[in-house]
Amino acid sequence: MTNTVIELICIGNELLIGKTLNTNAQWLAKRITTLGLKVHRITIISDNIEEIAKAIQETIQRNPHFIITTGGLGPTFDDKTLEGIAKATKRKLTTHNQALKMIEAKYHQYAEEGRMERAELTPHRIKMAKLPEKAKPIFNPVGTAPGVTIKHDDITVIALPGIPSELKAIFDESVAPLLKEIAGEVTFFETSLGITGMGESAIAPLIDRVMHDNPYVYIKSHPRGEETIPHIELHFSTTAENTGLAKKRVSKTLLQLSELIQEKGGKVKPIKAKF
Amino acid sequence: MTNTVIELICIGNELLIGKTLNTNAQWLAKRITTLGLKVHRITIISDNIEEIAKAIQETIQRNPHFIITTGGLGPTFDDKTLEGIAKATKRKLTTHNQALKMIEAKYHQYAEEGRMERAELTPHRIKMAKLPEKAKPIFNPVGTAPGVTIKHDDITVIALPGIPSELKAIFDESVAPLLKEIAGEVTFFETSLGITGMGESAIAPLIDRVMHDNPYVYIKSHPRGEETIPHIELHFSTTAENTGLAKKRVSKTLLQLSELIQEKGGKVKPIKAKF
Repeated sequence: MTNTVIELICIGNELLIGKTLNTNAQWLAKRITTLGLKVHRITIISDNIEEIAKAIQETIQRNPHFIITTGGLGPTFDDKTLEGIAKATKRKLTTHNQALKMIEAKYHQYAEEGRMERAELTPHRIKMAKLPEKAKPIFNPVGTAPGVTIKHDDITVIALPGIPSELKAIFDESVAPLLKEIAGEVTFFETSLGITGMGESAIAPLIDRVMHDNPYVYIKSHPRGEETIPHIELHFSTTAENTGLAKKRVSKTLLQLSELIQEKGGKVKPIKAKF
Repeated sequence: MTNTVIELICIGNELLIGKTLNTNAQWLAKRITTLGLKVHRITIISDNIEEIAKAIQETIQRNPHFIITTGGLGPTFDDKTLEGIAKATKRKLTTHNQALKMIEAKYHQYAEEGRMERAELTPHRIKMAKLPEKAKPIFNPVGTAPGVTIKHDDITVIALPGIPSELKAIFDESVAPLLKEIAGEVTFFETSLGITGMGESAIAPLIDRVMHDNPYVYIKSHPRGEETIPHIELHFSTTAENTGLAKKRVSKTLLQLSELIQEKGGKVKPIKAKF
């Protein structure tokens, strides 16, 4: 199912005041793309419960297959993601036994290892186990707050913590296998060419021609520096039923465009793919 | 007017496949915050014209004062921001004389300086001057594609190029002065404290108490590493009518929380503000 629609919602004031660079969104987008699926939209909002609920409601109305949220699952007052999801999906928040056990086990482990003084479940720790009704906790292999998953009509909502190491661990262990199963053999393939001696506006009509002949390959030009110091990265990407087909399509397209650029006096050199 | 609502819309497939880290959004958010205003939401969408138009329509419905878009103003087929804005605001795209003159002058300058072979206006270059009706071009001091501004009812839409150097130059030269005038003397101030020897869930109730006593200061805890290797960054921020008041508020809050943390056995050290 290559037309699976995934939206990300990143929650955190630090992203809206420019304190934190949103590396979580990039990491998830790259991972999901590599798995053969597609992120359709990313929304970044503050830790305000009304804002979270509103953004989730609006996203639900666009009816994606998956909504993945990042941030706001911790023990502090401004960790409001689950409250926001509960409000948006008209569910109550209740203490989830399994989630509470997960959290309790973590604090006991920390205390036994001498890494934390007290193991008891304070209200701020119990807060992390308060899930929207019918939600399920997802085990967090490297931190305390569990991830959370909720089936809402046909939409799967997955809430991940904002701490990058925890987000990555939960995604790789519990979310990626699910998405890979949906994607099947479908593969994303990409590569880049570096062009010198030609500006973006001169390359544009050549891209038009080559994309017309190769409708499954997406070519995007990225000017590096000013347009007049012509150094353009051309990025080729495709999603195909298997790796062989994906590579074949990209190679054909790349060769055709390289020839056209060289005919017009441009210089072409391969750039190592960044994936 | 400190309740000015600003939304950013970042347009570009490269952001949704994780190829590019969205440094533009962070840069703009930080700049706008430093000017004393607030970014309420950031939306990231693909280069698809329907998606752009839909995201802009949805944003218009939330009725912010400003919508600032990034990306999609260049000469290639997938630079569709102006088409998307035109569609969302039900305007035609027409070649704007002043914009065309700006672009023409740039290519003549490049050709005279020997940095580009041909100065003539090809269809792909003219494309950058096709603006939604009643839009105005904004001079681009370092690149070719002008920025664009449109008054739509009470909303000011500002479209900036995606190339970081061009985005920054247009913003600083033409957008920042306008926003500064709106913000007036209002100032954003922030600083951070580093905490060791205490986990996030133990600091949480202390933050609650201090924020209750200091409602104008926002305190956010950022766990660095795992919760059990307790290194927490506490970030204090406020927006106030003047710098003196902002600093006074933050200092008072910071002292109060530091004392509470030290009473509970935590260690406090100042972290240099990152702004």
